Amino acid sequence: MRERALRAIAECRRIADLSEEPGRITRRFLTPPMHEVHALLSGRMKALDMNPSVDAAGNLRGLWQPAEAGNRRLMLGSHIDTVPDAGAFDGVLGVVLALEWVELARELNLPLAIEVIAFSEEEGVRFGVPFLGSRAVAGRFDPALLALRDADGVTLEEAIRAFGLDPGRISEAAADAGVLDMVEIHIEQGPVLEVEDLSVAAVTAIVGQTRASLKFTGQANHPGTTPMRLRHDALACAAEWITGVEALALRSEGLSATVGRVDVTPNAGNVIPGTVSVSLDVRHSSDSARAEAVETLLAQADAIAARRGLRFDCVRQMDQPAVPMDERLTAFMAEAIEAAGLPLKRMASGAGHDAMVMAARMPTAMLFLRSSGGISHHPGEAVREEDVESALKVGRKFLERLAAEAR
Amino acid sequence: MRERALRAIAECRRIADLSEEPGRITRRFLTPPMHEVHALLSGRMKALDMNPSVDAAGNLRGLWQPAEAGNRRLMLGSHIDTVPDAGAFDGVLGVVLALEWVELARELNLPLAIEVIAFSEEEGVRFGVPFLGSRAVAGRFDPALLALRDADGVTLEEAIRAFGLDPGRISEAAADAGVLDMVEIHIEQGPVLEVEDLSVAAVTAIVGQTRASLKFTGQANHPGTTPMRLRHDALACAAEWITGVEALALRSEGLSATVGRVDVTPNAGNVIPGTVSVSLDVRHSSDSARAEAVETLLAQADAIAARRGLRFDCVRQMDQPAVPMDERLTAFMAEAIEAAGLPLKRMASGAGHDAMVMAARMPTAMLFLRSSGGISHHPGEAVREEDVESALKVGRKFLERLAAEAR
Repeated sequence: MRERALRAIAECRRIADLSEEPGRITRRFLTPPMHEVHALLSGRMKALDMNPSVDAAGNLRGLWQPAEAGNRRLMLGSHIDTVPDAGAFDGVLGVVLALEWVELARELNLPLAIEVIAFSEEEGVRFGVPFLGSRAVAGRFDPALLALRDADGVTLEEAIRAFGLDPGRISEAAADAGVLDMVEIHIEQGPVLEVEDLSVAAVTAIVGQTRASLKFTGQANHPGTTPMRLRHDALACAAEWITGVEALALRSEGLSATVGRVDVTPNAGNVIPGTVSVSLDVRHSSDSARAEAVETLLAQADAIAARRGLRFDCVRQMDQPAVPMDERLTAFMAEAIEAAGLPLKRMASGAGHDAMVMAARMPTAMLFLRSSGGISHHPGEAVREEDVESALKVGRKFLERLAAEAR
Repeated sequence: MRERALRAIAECRRIADLSEEPGRITRRFLTPPMHEVHALLSGRMKALDMNPSVDAAGNLRGLWQPAEAGNRRLMLGSHIDTVPDAGAFDGVLGVVLALEWVELARELNLPLAIEVIAFSEEEGVRFGVPFLGSRAVAGRFDPALLALRDADGVTLEEAIRAFGLDPGRISEAAADAGVLDMVEIHIEQGPVLEVEDLSVAAVTAIVGQTRASLKFTGQANHPGTTPMRLRHDALACAAEWITGVEALALRSEGLSATVGRVDVTPNAGNVIPGTVSVSLDVRHSSDSARAEAVETLLAQADAIAARRGLRFDCVRQMDQPAVPMDERLTAFMAEAIEAAGLPLKRMASGAGHDAMVMAARMPTAMLFLRSSGGISHHPGEAVREEDVESALKVGRKFLERLAAEAR
């Protein structure tokens, strides 16, 4: 298994060289290096008798179909596009490991059909909309998206044609009834497994997210001539609230609450701030816990502003429900982690993944690998050999469990 | 006295019409409307036998010299320049009331010489440096200032010449040994008298001021994948500190502590802030109280950053000592307020004034008048008739007291 792990890491490093920019890993949707990645992965698929092809949304797909397996099949994969100046493992590792899992299934003679998919687009960099590849496979690709334009003015429809594909056939990319389950392997992109010194985790849900913009309106004034008790300082008001946002999240299990943006008017050292706008980002795997936290925080903002004689306004910009992973499939993943001799860690994903889109269509599970140093979307992104080896051991147990169920 | 008050207010309104811009009050140092203001005020001075003249720094000066008064004289005045889009009373009212005080002294046959001065420059708008007029009278005009340039590239030296004055004679503008005391009458430019429903106040000091720039450096990160306890959120850190800044100032008598500027990096709703820079403005009439507050606040910043695992840096940009008003002269002013039948209010000025510069040269006192609504540096600036009347009553008592001392 260690050799297989080393091979997978080397494969990711090789794919990292296929980039739009020399010296940096940047591989956006349907750009020329994507052809090279397809060629490399297709070669591997062909060697595994997987009959690779590229669907109209640019997803590379290959099917491992043992004679005794029947129609029921597992879909296994992740994405191969990247953010600008990316690391080598976000997405790509999930595709490379999917092929390793197929090889394991073949060696074990498991009667399990596996379709490996390299999603063409997940990051949303080129057209500003993420999950273009998985939307098509989940049957949720809105044809209106074809009119999107990239920074060069090229439409999505034109980009698909330029890549040699037919945008009129995107609906054919949707997974057929034979695909019964989906599994995505992905690096954690955070520090949790690193801090807890764990190799892998079963993902329980993709967290839901609320985004809002808040505005505190007080009175700009002269700091020399306006006594403290006569002020309506919008920044002091916002600061009190921001401190409360952090405090609530620290005492609420699983809650992420973040103020990332602050805009002060007039923002001068010698003027008491008149208005302050702030962003709020709240995430939780439980929609009710998230909704309750948002209500609490907005009520706090309202109360603090009222006590200080300020006006408070709020615009909600996003309320995206949590996407739970499939219970049965995640239980199999948890069993597989323990059967592989690893400590069982379950955790929610705070970032979005193709698995989130696929979960609307079919039972879906995710396996996280530790991100070394918690670093992602950065050239320093790395994985440890032992963690990749763990993911292979878990894969063997998981596939055995799934094959046993299918019998 | 009420008629005199109405006349003073009308005079300020008339001067407000002498502006660089139609419909707005903007009268910068040595601009053409300054000639018109000089002409108007000179007319009044001539009617009072004050022999007006303009010194080389552009200050209009006139001397009321009763035969029996001798050399000892009081200097009385304020500034006649304005900020852009100003109100009608900041500065100008102090000059107009100075002439009313002279008329009172004349009517009372007080053996007191009074030099009324309309300082040419206080706001620092045209050349970026304030107090150009009073610096010259205080004998503290650095000739290097003559090289300053305004937004049109005109040097201060050229501006003085263009106004018909001789920059080589600025040193002659310095008050001679015959000027023994200085009094400035000025609107409060803040809400304190308004809130306490008082007409006037004796100013005890111009507060000292510390300005500093602070920077908290944490770690930018993904709010979805970085659990609350593993964050080094520079904004949460800054917010905790800002809340403490306000709390310290609220519980410390006479302390003003203000954070007016906040710059967050990267300042995006979906990124945990990596660095936050903030301004700190601390003012107090006691230099030791100010220094102690600054030390406390910087120590708090250091401690909060350390506890959160952030780096803290600080650059001090200004440490300007407080300027106490003269005790004897301020006691006379306080006596005069009470003798005029008004409640005695003593207060520090949080803004700078010509009196601050003059205090380095001679005993100086200030009388504040209520600013209606606390508004200043704004077209809505206003004074109440009753308050101007109060200032006239205080003036009569003050001049009587000073004349009695001189006897």
